[in-house]
Amino acid sequence: MKLIFQKDILLNAINIVLKAVPGKTTMPILECILIDAEGSDIRLTANDMELGIETRVMGIIEEHGKIALDAKLFSEIIRKLPNSNVTIETQANFNTSIVCEKSKFNILGKDGDEFSYLPYIEREQYIRLSQFTLKDVIRQTIFSISPNDSNKMMTGELFEVDGNELRVVSLDGHRISIRKIELNETYENAKVIVPGKTLTEISKILSGDNSKEVLIFFHDNHILFEFDDTIVVSRLIEGEYFRINQMLSSDYETKVTLNKREFLDCIDRATLLIRESDKKPIIISIGEDTMRLKLTSMMGSMNEDIDIQKNGKDIMIGFNPRFLIDALRVIDDEEISIYLVNPKAPCFIKDAEESYIYLILPVNFSSAV
Amino acid sequence: MKLIFQKDILLNAINIVLKAVPGKTTMPILECILIDAEGSDIRLTANDMELGIETRVMGIIEEHGKIALDAKLFSEIIRKLPNSNVTIETQANFNTSIVCEKSKFNILGKDGDEFSYLPYIEREQYIRLSQFTLKDVIRQTIFSISPNDSNKMMTGELFEVDGNELRVVSLDGHRISIRKIELNETYENAKVIVPGKTLTEISKILSGDNSKEVLIFFHDNHILFEFDDTIVVSRLIEGEYFRINQMLSSDYETKVTLNKREFLDCIDRATLLIRESDKKPIIISIGEDTMRLKLTSMMGSMNEDIDIQKNGKDIMIGFNPRFLIDALRVIDDEEISIYLVNPKAPCFIKDAEESYIYLILPVNFSSAV
Repeated sequence: MKLIFQKDILLNAINIVLKAVPGKTTMPILECILIDAEGSDIRLTANDMELGIETRVMGIIEEHGKIALDAKLFSEIIRKLPNSNVTIETQANFNTSIVCEKSKFNILGKDGDEFSYLPYIEREQYIRLSQFTLKDVIRQTIFSISPNDSNKMMTGELFEVDGNELRVVSLDGHRISIRKIELNETYENAKVIVPGKTLTEISKILSGDNSKEVLIFFHDNHILFEFDDTIVVSRLIEGEYFRINQMLSSDYETKVTLNKREFLDCIDRATLLIRESDKKPIIISIGEDTMRLKLTSMMGSMNEDIDIQKNGKDIMIGFNPRFLIDALRVIDDEEISIYLVNPKAPCFIKDAEESYIYLILPVNFSSAV
Repeated sequence: MKLIFQKDILLNAINIVLKAVPGKTTMPILECILIDAEGSDIRLTANDMELGIETRVMGIIEEHGKIALDAKLFSEIIRKLPNSNVTIETQANFNTSIVCEKSKFNILGKDGDEFSYLPYIEREQYIRLSQFTLKDVIRQTIFSISPNDSNKMMTGELFEVDGNELRVVSLDGHRISIRKIELNETYENAKVIVPGKTLTEISKILSGDNSKEVLIFFHDNHILFEFDDTIVVSRLIEGEYFRINQMLSSDYETKVTLNKREFLDCIDRATLLIRESDKKPIIISIGEDTMRLKLTSMMGSMNEDIDIQKNGKDIMIGFNPRFLIDALRVIDDEEISIYLVNPKAPCFIKDAEESYIYLILPVNFSSAV
């Protein structure tokens, strides 16, 4: 195999597939990036068996072939080369030379035939949206998946297509995040659970450009994202997702409208008094035109008043401040509304159209005051 | 005590003294910042007993007094407050309230009388230079102090004043860094060893402004830096520094002149093939118009040629690439000269005026090729 690339273009492609190289593995071949130039174009692939990424990269094929190179070393070498042409050439024993101007590296590659290609996915059922929208909706929901595996379903997000609407849901037992997106067309219904890791990695390589599109294909146990010159294939989480609709309710006793930034900054300050292991709630007392926030810990106490508009009853309720912060950070509205029932019932932060719903369970604070 | 500050100004002062708050200590009072408003102005002080920083901060004294507050908590609270006036008020039991707009914190302080003030330093013998110059010379020498305490002297830097010249020297047994600075006046001679930690912390708070000055006072076992509204006092390392002049020589067999950036980038690339514990040298072969760099490790090999101008003999010599990189990074010249004697003698990187001299010992490479 002998290939010539422009350094920048090659590096960009490496950085894309690098997202699917596992941190730790017992199979050394998975730590490699496959360079495949057996056909008419050059493709880089990485695959950790759950998540696989393949991208096409522009370059000149002087001699067809393929090679698997250690991902970390290969990416670091290319990164540090001068911005010029890079020639990659392999010998029969998988010895690979990387030459750029007067700099020459020799490293030992692995047989490309040992590499596991991405599974073949039928491109039939799909939806289309902008890269910006997909990246955004991941950011707005990913924080409330569960970090641990004890309930596999909670480590993923529900992607549900219903006509021209995509609903993305995540939950971790203490809170639920829901975002609704209107699609440009009507599609066949679909309902899949996508691993959180897949979404985290894909959001790193999506350009966030509103004018660029991504196609999402649904197929049995896999999901495939196709955009630019790249495809990302991931296994799905099997099983039936939680019945979200049963947990949602539009009844409320108290509705509060307030400035989001003020509310967020105030909670953020209060958390200074909590060290990691500490579980102190922030206590919110809602009166006529004012909300008083109060937090007391071993380190001290803080309180602050915020102007609000209120409908309904006065209420005092406690929350894990971290959960409020997570939700408030990803809401772009300047003014938000919070719906409450009683100190033991979940609160809802949502807009009038329900394009977003953040449900948060309160915590008991009787002993904490 | 009752004081009113502008948040920005207070935060800036806190960030300055924070550099002298120790990471770990068995004396809780050292983890505090002292706010002293007993006199006509307000001073913040932190002191880890080796290094102490005091800075004057603008504010209104409504009631005189002093208090010691936990440095970490105090700085985080001020950082997160809105950009407005901050009122700090203490009660008799050292309970301290921090109020800013509608936000109110209560934390428990400590008796200011328990705090150790900075030692009194006679302001007699001194030098004057720009903050920029001091910050720069620290950056250009600090990397070659020894990180471990086995030889205390090596953990500091020599500051030597001779007439109108300041010479700053650091060494770690494998290399020596020397910078000479011409001062604007002639001063009394001085020769002290300043702890590396003091220099690291002070370089973080120096503004790097060429038009702002710093005064350095020498006194028995202490050094005092005075600039802006701040003084930094540090213990000196006791003892007689190494006799540097004996280690310097101006004889050479080979002189090489080359582009610094090209040389640095090439060595930087070569280090990709070395993992931390690995001690592979970079081998430099100097021929007529070309220098060939070569590095071979378990991971692979690299070689690269660089154009040079040479006077004297051909030579082949090995170095720890890290030592070359450290020195080259802090030399601002585009073109540099390297002076060599033989593969076992130190090499010198220096300019014609010897405003900088970097001495690096070679490593044996017979077994490595």
